[in-house]
This record gives sequence, structure tokens and C-alpha cells, in this order.
Amino acid sequence: MKTVILAGGKGTRLWPLSREDYPKQFLKIINGESLIQRSVNMFSKLSEIYIITSKQLYPFFSYEVKGISLENVLQEPAARGTAPAIAYALSILEDDDYLFVPSDHMLDESFLELVKKVKPEEGEILLFGHKPEGPATGYGYIKKGQRINEVKLKASGFFEKPDLKEAEMFYKSGEYLWNMGMFYMKKKTAEIAFKRHLPEVYDVVFEKKAKGYEDLPEVSFDKGIVEKYDNVSVAEFTGLWKDMGSWESFYEVMKKDKDGNAVYGDVYALDSHGSLGISEGRLTVLYGVNDLAVISTRDVTFVIPRSLSEKTKEIVKALDGRKEAKRSPIMYRSWGYYIILEEGPRYKVKKLYIAPGKSLSYQMHFHRAEHWVVVRGTAKVTYDGKEVIVAENESFFVPMGKKHKIENPGKIPLEIIEVQTGEYLEEDDIVRF
Amino acid sequence: MKTVILAGGKGTRLWPLSREDYPKQFLKIINGESLIQRSVNMFSKLSEIYIITSKQLYPFFSYEVKGISLENVLQEPAARGTAPAIAYALSILEDDDYLFVPSDHMLDESFLELVKKVKPEEGEILLFGHKPEGPATGYGYIKKGQRINEVKLKASGFFEKPDLKEAEMFYKSGEYLWNMGMFYMKKKTAEIAFKRHLPEVYDVVFEKKAKGYEDLPEVSFDKGIVEKYDNVSVAEFTGLWKDMGSWESFYEVMKKDKDGNAVYGDVYALDSHGSLGISEGRLTVLYGVNDLAVISTRDVTFVIPRSLSEKTKEIVKALDGRKEAKRSPIMYRSWGYYIILEEGPRYKVKKLYIAPGKSLSYQMHFHRAEHWVVVRGTAKVTYDGKEVIVAENESFFVPMGKKHKIENPGKIPLEIIEVQTGEYLEEDDIVRF
Repeated sequence: MKTVILAGGKGTRLWPLSREDYPKQFLKIINGESLIQRSVNMFSKLSEIYIITSKQLYPFFSYEVKGISLENVLQEPAARGTAPAIAYALSILEDDDYLFVPSDHMLDESFLELVKKVKPEEGEILLFGHKPEGPATGYGYIKKGQRINEVKLKASGFFEKPDLKEAEMFYKSGEYLWNMGMFYMKKKTAEIAFKRHLPEVYDVVFEKKAKGYEDLPEVSFDKGIVEKYDNVSVAEFTGLWKDMGSWESFYEVMKKDKDGNAVYGDVYALDSHGSLGISEGRLTVLYGVNDLAVISTRDVTFVIPRSLSEKTKEIVKALDGRKEAKRSPIMYRSWGYYIILEEGPRYKVKKLYIAPGKSLSYQMHFHRAEHWVVVRGTAKVTYDGKEVIVAENESFFVPMGKKHKIENPGKIPLEIIEVQTGEYLEEDDIVRF
Repeated sequence: MKTVILAGGKGTRLWPLSREDYPKQFLKIINGESLIQRSVNMFSKLSEIYIITSKQLYPFFSYEVKGISLENVLQEPAARGTAPAIAYALSILEDDDYLFVPSDHMLDESFLELVKKVKPEEGEILLFGHKPEGPATGYGYIKKGQRINEVKLKASGFFEKPDLKEAEMFYKSGEYLWNMGMFYMKKKTAEIAFKRHLPEVYDVVFEKKAKGYEDLPEVSFDKGIVEKYDNVSVAEFTGLWKDMGSWESFYEVMKKDKDGNAVYGDVYALDSHGSLGISEGRLTVLYGVNDLAVISTRDVTFVIPRSLSEKTKEIVKALDGRKEAKRSPIMYRSWGYYIILEEGPRYKVKKLYIAPGKSLSYQMHFHRAEHWVVVRGTAKVTYDGKEVIVAENESFFVPMGKKHKIENPGKIPLEIIEVQTGEYLEEDDIVRF
């Protein structure tokens, strides 16, 4: 068997720390470890693992995730939901049993023991379900059917996030499980299921009959396959599991001080109780507040009662048109990362962090000139075909239209302050060679 | 008569927007006008005005305050409280009647009518009092004595900020007035009062017998003179007056939206009620919160219930040792201002804004080199005795130990991104020529 971690999601539910271009799986707020790193560490104990992610997020893996070969990180052509992602991964991978798991869940290691006890039969799609701990409205529900063996039951029905009344009914009846969003099946089984229930995905991905992965409908594996498929079973998991879908869920798993406050970063919670304080690069002071979530980033301050934090996604939608709704001031790349320090009408100031041995691509901009000041390490700059060494406290200027490349040939990180000037300063003004 | 605005105070009560080095009188959050500008505009209608302030704050006046000649802005040798400040101002000014007023109060123009009706007699110190609107504990109280005329009474006692029980008693009795912190008297009267009650201040300031203004005790004019003096009267003012001593007082005078939220800067208050949101250079989103004050600056996020905002001063004290407690990332100078964009172990990035026609001093640093990139306007740089023009999108490098000066010879503002590198990057590494 092999494990595939689904890691193509966007991060609007944990805004403003995560963004469309900086998803929550990479946040290190639980014991300094990201959710994706936890998943990689844990499932590596079970089997060889793969990750399926987007082109946009791929650089995070080389930079932020340890213990996985980049060859095992698959890049989806576009983000079209979990059904196309699963099909795409399987179309590349060899014949075997595959366990697909989300990247943004908290899960304890006893889950591995459960997986070892089950094995998907030919034609069977196996789900994992958790006994409801209350009438939660944030989960999908699976109705339990006939028991197959000690750990496995038939799945006899599927219900998307219910309203509270329905959720209470599900909870009281004892006949339902929370859908953990995991799928375990043979490659062959999935292929047949796609052919039958999502033929347009099958044709594009497996048969390569048609181009247009980008034009596929956005559809989840639950909706597109599982709910229509006849041979679905479920294994019941009783250990710790939590979908990290809101600030409230982070609060729940974080360490608390004696007043029940959970903080990450440079946060003082004084005379406050039950509050979550998260700060990135700034001093944050909470005084006399209860049960509040305060998230400070370089470009946003967000204040919401913890109990309402499920609303975050809607609030971000309401901020549509604001760059802060989607874009992060910190962006990871295969070579390191940059932080936008300041933006003005005809200039932008960035800090570039280039890891030892890494290099940016050979490139050119039509609309901007770049001034670099090396503040740490040593840069090798290729400019108009020639190589130059730029040491700490030295600067280099690249006019508009000139080819250039920065490398870090050294053993310590290279840090550069870049001042861009020009009329158009967006990321898409770049020609790579 | 002449008016002197006392403007030497520090700004810890409105932290983090104001700081020890960036006081609240300059905040423009009420209709885009600062408190000091309001005072200058209003008292200019009454008489010639002077301002007494500290060396540190003097540059704010040339840059931020319109309608007053810089010759009328007096610089105290050190901040030692209102008594030495008043003595110092009078020691410079000619014989006349002087009205001393604070710079951080909201006051309506009917106050000018009251001043026109009164005139301090020889030997009389005239105060202004406001009828208490409730049992406030944040004000000093004046006990009303015998009535002198339609607008003036004898002052028969003084009480510093009382506890709630005492304040309730004062309020109910109807015999007390709030002390508005204003003093109206002849120069001669003050001189005699200082000689009698604060002889050490008198000797240093009026007689110049001793040096050591810096070593004077820190003492208020209320405590040091008024409470000991025998001929004190009070004029009752019934118009609008408010000591802007807390975030709550700003909330009270600011314009509210239909849900009672008052915001300044880039703030969205959604599903929130009665909240104050102030943001400087960053998006701030409040969702579902009531009666909260949220103050975001470039380097601090501060969240406190509005009703507790009087505690701000104590909270800042508790943060002692943090640079954010005292220093502002934006600093005004006589030539414009700078903003600290980023600080690292051996570098600092600043944005400099230099007003048209202004110039920094000819200077040199022992421990830092400076890289400048002009992002707007044109700079005239004097370097090692020679003059160079640095245009937009050009850069200039000043190594450690080299003399240099920046001027803006142009008609539009000059904006420069400065990258400092070196082991010691504090403001005091500067030799001026």
C-alpha cells in the first residue's frame, strides 16, 4: 500500500495567517510544527508516501517539508477539487492500494494501527469514520450499515454538513459517523469508479483523450464518486481526530496558560481569559478580553470572538477586491522566500531570503529596475552574461530589460533587501530564460 | 494678553498610536485634524499664541502644525512638569497677562468668550473649572468659594484625582468643579508665586543663579504653586470640554457609524457594535465584537475593552524594556519623517520622507554604512565635500566614517529607501558638522 496526502487546498478559513497563496497546512503554530509536516512524519511510518499539490504550492515542499523526496511531490495542473486530484495522482502512480488522507487534520498515531488492520477489497472504497462527540454541523456524516467484521461496516448513506437539528438527530441516534475525508482503495477500483461516475474526469486524466484539466468541473471525491458508488464501507476510528478548519480548532489543540489563553508569536495576554492570540512579526497585547481570537500579521489585524471563528471564510469573501484577502506578504519559492516590506506608487521593497546553494531563475523584467543590497551572506549575480560576486554591505543594480540571476553559492543564508522601481511592479512582469 | 499652549507631554495613555517620542497631540484621528492644530487654530482667534514644548518634539511643529511662526515655539531644556515649563516660558516672554492651556483637550470655541470676560488682577491666579457631569475619578477638583462676580468665584480648595466614593460626594454636593488645567495670570504674579513657593525653580529659571534645569524636581503648577497660593479664583465654563486622556475619550468625540462604531484608518467593523478601531498602515477587520478598542500600528496590535482603556498607561509600564513601549516606528524631524520598515541583526531598512527645500544635517556615522535608493523626487547629496545629484531610480552609497548630507532641492517630496548595515544601528551613532 501507499499513502497520498492531499495538499492542494486554499487557506481562507484561517485568514489572515493563511491566504489563497499561503495555505494553512504550512502554519507552524502547534509546537512549531506544521500540519503537513506532522502528516509526513506520521504516514512515513506506515508506507511510502506521496503528496499531491498545486504548482503554486510546490515550492513550499522543497523549502518547508522535511523527510520526503521532491520526486514524490506531484503537481496538479490546476486545483479542481479532490476528485480530479485523486484521479491525477493515480494516473501517474503504479498499481497498488492507496490511502488518500487530508493534510490539514490533527490525528494521533493510533490511526496507523487501524489502517494496518484493514485492506480494501477489489471494487471496495473504504472510508474512515469517527464517532460523533456532539452535534457538530461542520462535518459530513456517514450512516452506518451492516457490520462486515470487527473494524469495518457497510456505509449506507452520506450526508453533507447538516443543520443543527439534523446534527442533533444524527448524534442522538448513534447510527452515524463523522466522515474523516479519507479514502482507501485499489487503483483499479478508483479507475472503474471514475469511468462510471465521472467520465469527463476519466477521459481527461486516465485516457488523455481530451485536454483541459483546467476546464474540469470542480468536484469532490465524496460528491462525485463516493455518494454514487455502491460498494462503500467504513472503518471506525476512536482515537484523536480533529479537522483544523477554524481558529477555534487551533485554539483547542494549542497549549493554554493558566487563564486558558493560547498564544503563538510575540503575544502578551494580560488579565485575559480563554483567548487565542497569534502574531507574526509584531507585538500584540490583549488586555482584559475573554474568548477572543486576535490574529495579527504584517499586513492585517483580525479580531473575532473565538466562537464565531467559523465565519472567517465568509468574512474573507466579503473583503473580495482587497489584496489582503488573497495574497500573503510572505511568499515561499523553491529557492527560499520573500517578504514585501513596503509598497508605494512606483516602488516596492522586499526582503529576499535565499537558502544556501539555491538560485533564482535567469530572468528579465520589462517594467522594473531592481536595486539589491546584500545584508547577510554572499551573492553570485549573473548579469548580462557575466558573473559578479556581491558581498555583505555591497549593492547591485539591474536596469529594466536586462537579464539577471541571483545565486547563493555560500554555506549560510543569503539575505538581500530589494528595492524595485517602475510603473508596474507585479509578479507577472517576468521573462525566464 | 497672550496664550501659551503647554505641549511638552508624553503620549503613553494613547499607546500604541502615541509613544514617549510621538505624543498624542499630533494624532489626526478627529476629522483629520490633530489636537494641537485645533488648539492653535482656536486660540489664534483670541490672541498671539506661543507653544512651549521639548527639544524632542520641536520638529513636529515645523512639520505638522500650520499657522504659527516657529519663533513662537519655545523649547524647554528638559521635561520637568508644568511648573518649570510655565516658569521657563515666562522668563523668555515680555510683561503681559498669560493664559496657559493644555494641548490635549477638546474645547469648544465658546471658551474664548469666557476668557474675554475675565482678566486676572494683580496677584491673582485664575483657574477655569467645569461643572462635573458625573463622579469622574480622572480629574482634579476645585472647591467653590465666595462668588466674586458673574463669572468668577474664589477657589477654596484643591483635590487631586479622588477615589469613586469621594468623587460621588463631590458630584452630589454641587460645591466642586473639574479643574480644567488652565492658568491665567500676570507674568509678575507668577514670578512672585515662584519666588515664594518654588524658590529652586525661580533661582534657576528667572535669576539664572544656578544651572541645572535638568536637575529641577518634576512638579506640576497645580501642586507646586496653585495649592499653596492664597489668591486663587476660578471661572466657570459650561461649554464642551474633554480631557483626551484615554482611548475612551477619543471614541466619545469621534463620528460613529449606525452601529456605534468609531473607526480611523483602514478599518472594517462588521457585525460589531460600540467599538473603536484605529489602524495605521494596515487592514484591520473587527467581526462580531462589542465595546472593544482595537489599535493597530505598524509594530503593535493592542486590544482592550473600551471601558478599560484608562489602564493603557499601566499596561505600557508593564511592557517596560520592550522598544515598542517607548519608541515609535515613525519619527518626525525638522526635515520630514522616517519610518522603520524592517530591522535585522546587522541591518535596518528605513523610508525617509524629505519635504521640498529641506535638508538633513551634514553628518557621519562610525558604525554604519548607508545605501540610498531614491524612489520619488531628486536628492542633492553632499559627500566628502562634493555635491552630487541623485535622481529617481538612482542609488548612492555612504561607507562608514564618511561625511554626508541629503537635501531636497526640488518642488515635490523626496522619498528614499535607506538600507543601513553595520553592527550598531541606533540613532545616537551620529556626528554632526
